[in-house]
This record gives sequence, structure tokens and C-alpha cells, in this order.
Amino acid sequence: MIETPYLLFLGDAPDQLAAKVAQGIKDWRPENAVGQYRMDGCKADLGLQDMDLLAAKAAGAKTLVIGVANRGGVISPEWKKVLVMALEEGFDLASGLHNLLREEPDLVAVAEATGRALHDVRVPEVEYPIANGVKRTGKRCLAVGTDCSIGKMYTALAMDAEMRSRGMKSTFRATGQTGILITGDGVPLDAVIADFMAGSVEWLTPDNDEDHWDMIEGQGSLFHVSFSGVTMALVHGGQPDALILCHEPTRTHMRGLPGYALPTLEDLRDTALPLARVANPACQVVGISVNTQNLADDDARAYLAKLEADMGLPATDPFRYGAGKLVDALAAI
Amino acid sequence: MIETPYLLFLGDAPDQLAAKVAQGIKDWRPENAVGQYRMDGCKADLGLQDMDLLAAKAAGAKTLVIGVANRGGVISPEWKKVLVMALEEGFDLASGLHNLLREEPDLVAVAEATGRALHDVRVPEVEYPIANGVKRTGKRCLAVGTDCSIGKMYTALAMDAEMRSRGMKSTFRATGQTGILITGDGVPLDAVIADFMAGSVEWLTPDNDEDHWDMIEGQGSLFHVSFSGVTMALVHGGQPDALILCHEPTRTHMRGLPGYALPTLEDLRDTALPLARVANPACQVVGISVNTQNLADDDARAYLAKLEADMGLPATDPFRYGAGKLVDALAAI
Repeated sequence: MIETPYLLFLGDAPDQLAAKVAQGIKDWRPENAVGQYRMDGCKADLGLQDMDLLAAKAAGAKTLVIGVANRGGVISPEWKKVLVMALEEGFDLASGLHNLLREEPDLVAVAEATGRALHDVRVPEVEYPIANGVKRTGKRCLAVGTDCSIGKMYTALAMDAEMRSRGMKSTFRATGQTGILITGDGVPLDAVIADFMAGSVEWLTPDNDEDHWDMIEGQGSLFHVSFSGVTMALVHGGQPDALILCHEPTRTHMRGLPGYALPTLEDLRDTALPLARVANPACQVVGISVNTQNLADDDARAYLAKLEADMGLPATDPFRYGAGKLVDALAAI
Repeated sequence: MIETPYLLFLGDAPDQLAAKVAQGIKDWRPENAVGQYRMDGCKADLGLQDMDLLAAKAAGAKTLVIGVANRGGVISPEWKKVLVMALEEGFDLASGLHNLLREEPDLVAVAEATGRALHDVRVPEVEYPIANGVKRTGKRCLAVGTDCSIGKMYTALAMDAEMRSRGMKSTFRATGQTGILITGDGVPLDAVIADFMAGSVEWLTPDNDEDHWDMIEGQGSLFHVSFSGVTMALVHGGQPDALILCHEPTRTHMRGLPGYALPTLEDLRDTALPLARVANPACQVVGISVNTQNLADDDARAYLAKLEADMGLPATDPFRYGAGKLVDALAAI
């Protein structure tokens, strides 16, 4: 287990989205985030107090969490200086990057010399089985998106919180580094060997009470050519009973893929549902979760109302307006 | 590079399909297969001469190739005895199993003591990029199937051979252990880390002459819940201009998944083509490849004729009747 609370390292994040790991921790475990550490040129800001290592140490922080991702997941030389100093100051390090802390000889040497821990939360520590497709008891909900980084994790976390507050049986099932840092366990799906992806999702969401919901964190998008295989493994390994469609209406192209337009929500529904029914013929699309952060309140409400009329499904922004409407839909099936 | 020729190890294969690695080598590089080694209980037979290690050595074999796969890819204790003896007799070992030769301390020790090589062809030896989705020059063809182990590799190899015989520019691109053992290179896709699957396929099929075809070996099936994520990465990373639909009409359920029915060829077309057009809007379904090994000749021909009438696409069994019809269709686009 990773020692809390954290100092959230934002490095030289090129934009706010790059700091989504830190943002997730701050939003869902604010009690664990004592402050943020930003380097020159950092374009992300969580609204937490900026702290240097000594100030964070004085405030009680135990672990420096790398809360920023750059394309390819590399630990840059600029970051390295801060990480080495953090170890020297008595922090553990935790990271979900592809480039592992344990692959950096200087970090390993300093961690050993100082007795500090290096946590690579994206490294699978289980030998996952090959998926067997056998129907499991209990219910599962999966958020699927028109694009990556569009609010799927938030949707599942918000619905899980709402369900628990209603006394429903629900477990958030993390499939990415942020979710794992938030909950303390899960499957780092994008680091799993291809043949075992669907099996790892089956492992993560085992037999359960008939009225228990696994709220599975989505990854990628069936329409994102870089990561669609990971999404496919969730759709089939997760055996979802319910799909939530996720969208960001102002995005002009698929994240990281200039020239690739986003699909419509109708495209997403018509693609994801038949694929999900291969593994679970009873699967239904139950609602729509829209990330409206780039819309004014009036525009967001109008957009959601039109979506509901056009698609005949409840639509909301769970971060902005709460997840109640989506949980109502889930409770009704 | 793996030293040839080979002695093909069939172990205690439970059925003929389990020996498809050896079958592929025998069919496509018969000059490299001096014989087969079968243990008690082996249910596979390639029609090659059965040889013990000494006889194979005398016949010139340099490498014992594990030509059999069991579910999970484990090296059993029964096999181990033969593998150790083979090293002692001067054979190298080559394997495409998940359970690596290099993970077995006894094999490593004997290989070191005897100066022999252990080739794990399924281990990626390249740091693949994340897919960028950028359109590449040249043309690509991908075989997709209603199920796994249905003839996708054979289809691509047969079409590649036919295209070369016509003077067309074609390269078979291996994505699995058999293909890699046959061609000497490729991407062991099912062993690639999830995030890099589509990128590895882009890497395997780079820019090329406008009239050059990459004949990409398919894997899994979009309808096979254990492996559909791997297939998805091929559909998007491969950017195919042409899809060949593959089917085996007598199979009663998805391989390894009792209770899962096979989709129809129409289902496969209607699922695969829209997904492929995300990465390449010009993609077309150009033909159907049917594995008719379980049908009599008359039945096979009648089945293919009906398929052609029903679906409006050329249909053949490239192993039985040649790949000419499929290559005609490819040459026409």
C-alpha cells in the first residue's frame, strides 16, 4: 500500500488534461492531497497550494505521486532532479508511467540508500488468466466513450459514490493508474500483455451478489485507433449489463489523432452495444454522460435536454450535475 | 536467426488444431521440416516421418521447434524431459509459447552447459511506438475471422505466394509465433503490451510502394471474447485497404468458448468493415476465405457457390482450391 497523504507532482505538464492523474486524486481523495508541486512551464493547476518538498514534508506528505502523464510515459531528466531530491527528503515515490521508477538506476540507488519505496502502480503484479467468457453472477456497468480522456473514470466514480450513498451495493473497479492510486487496487490494463487483457477484466470483476454492481473504469475508445484494443477487452471481459455512453461535445478531433473526427453518440451506441452483446446478450445502453466543462451552464443544460430527446436516454454531466439520473437508470434495469 | 532445418515437436497434442504451429511450418516451409517428434498420447500427425532425436540429428535437423500449443502455453514436465535431451544431443530449441524457454532454469542451465540456443520467438524484442494513426503509403490486406484458428494465416500466406508468382509486390507480415517461425521476423502481437498493440502493427507495415501489398496475418476474432482486443488492434493499426472474411462452416461454437455461437459472415462483414473504416475510410471487403477441411469436395463447392451468390463476393478455400480468386479481387481494387 502507498503511504498517504500525497504531494502531487505536476512537473512541466503541457496542459490540464496531462495532469488528469493528479486531478483524479484531488477530486476523489482530497484528504490525501496536501499540495501540488509544479515546475517551470507547468500549464496545469489543481487549485491546491503550491509547495516545495520541505513545505510538503512539514505539512505531513509521505509520498510524492507523479500526477502527470506525457505521451509515451517517459521520466524526463528535468523531472529526475526533483524525484531524487524527494527521495533524499524522505518521500516515497508513486507513479503510473510506462517508464518505471524501478527502471531508473539512479532512483533505485537513492531509494535503497535512503530506505524509501518506489511504487509503480501500472505494473501488473498478478498472472492474469486467459478470459473464459463464462457468465458471472452480479451486475456490471461499463462506461464507453467517443474518445479517450473524456470522463469515463469520473462517470464510474461518481455513479459508485451515488450508489453507495443510496445504500446500493457497488464497487468501483479501477483499470488505470489513476483509479489504482485512488482505490489502492485494480488492473493496470494498458500494461497487461495482449492475450490476457480480457482475462484480467474477468479477474477484476468476479462473481458477486446478484444485486451488486461493479462500476468498471473504461479505457480508450472503440474509435481511437491507438487504444481501441484495450477498450474491446473491457467490452468483452467486463460482460457489462449496462453501458454508459461518454462524450465531450466541443472536442474537434480524437485526442492525439489530428485528422480523426469523433464519432457521434449514435455511432458509439450502434458499435458498442452489439459488441457487448456478444459477451452478454442482456446488455443495455442506459444513459449518457457528457463532459460539459467547456460549455456554459445554459448551453450544457440545453445540450443535455436535446440529447435526451434525440436518443431517448437520460443524459447528464455527473461531475457538474451529479450522477443521480444515471444511477436511477441503472437501478431500473 | 533460427538454424534450419527443424525437427517438429508435437508433444502430447490433444488434437490436430493444437499442432497448428508445426502444421504451418510443414505446409509453408516443407524444406525446413525433416520430421516430427510425437509423445505417447499425441493426437496430431503432420504426415511427416516420426523420428527420435538421434534419427533427426542424423537427418540434419539443427533445431527442435515446439510446434504444439496448449491452453495457457505451459511447458509441461513431460515435455521437459525431451527438451533437455534435445539440448544434450546438440539441438537448439525454438518456441512460441507464453511459458518461455528462458524462464525454465533447467533448460537455461543445460543450454549454457551445452552451448545451445533457446529461441523464444513470441517475445517482443522491439520497443514499439504508440500508434499515431497517420496514413501510410502502399496497400494492406487483413484477414478477419468469425472465430480463432480458422485459416487467417493460411489465407494471407496463400495469397502472398500467389501474388509473388504473378509478379505482384507482396510481403507476408507475421503477427504470431507460427508466422514468425516461418518468415524469420514479425510482431508477436499477443505478447505485446496492450497500449502498444496497434503501434506494433503500424511498425510492422510501414510506408511502401504504392503498388505493394502487405498481407497481414490476422489474430483472434472480433467475436471471440478472449482475444477480440488483439483483433481490434490489427483492424486499426493495420489500416487495411482490403479485408478478407474467414470462416469454418462446421464449427459448432467459438473455439474454447462452449456456449458462444459463431457469428455469420454477414455479422462479421457488418462489424469489421465500419471499424476498419475508422482508420481507413477506403477499406473494402474483397472476398471470403472458407476453411472447408471438414466438407467433402462437392459440399465445399456448393457451399462456396451459395456464399458467392448470397454475399456478392468471391469465395474460395485457398488451401484447397488456390488463392487465385482472392488475388484477382485484390488486384481489381
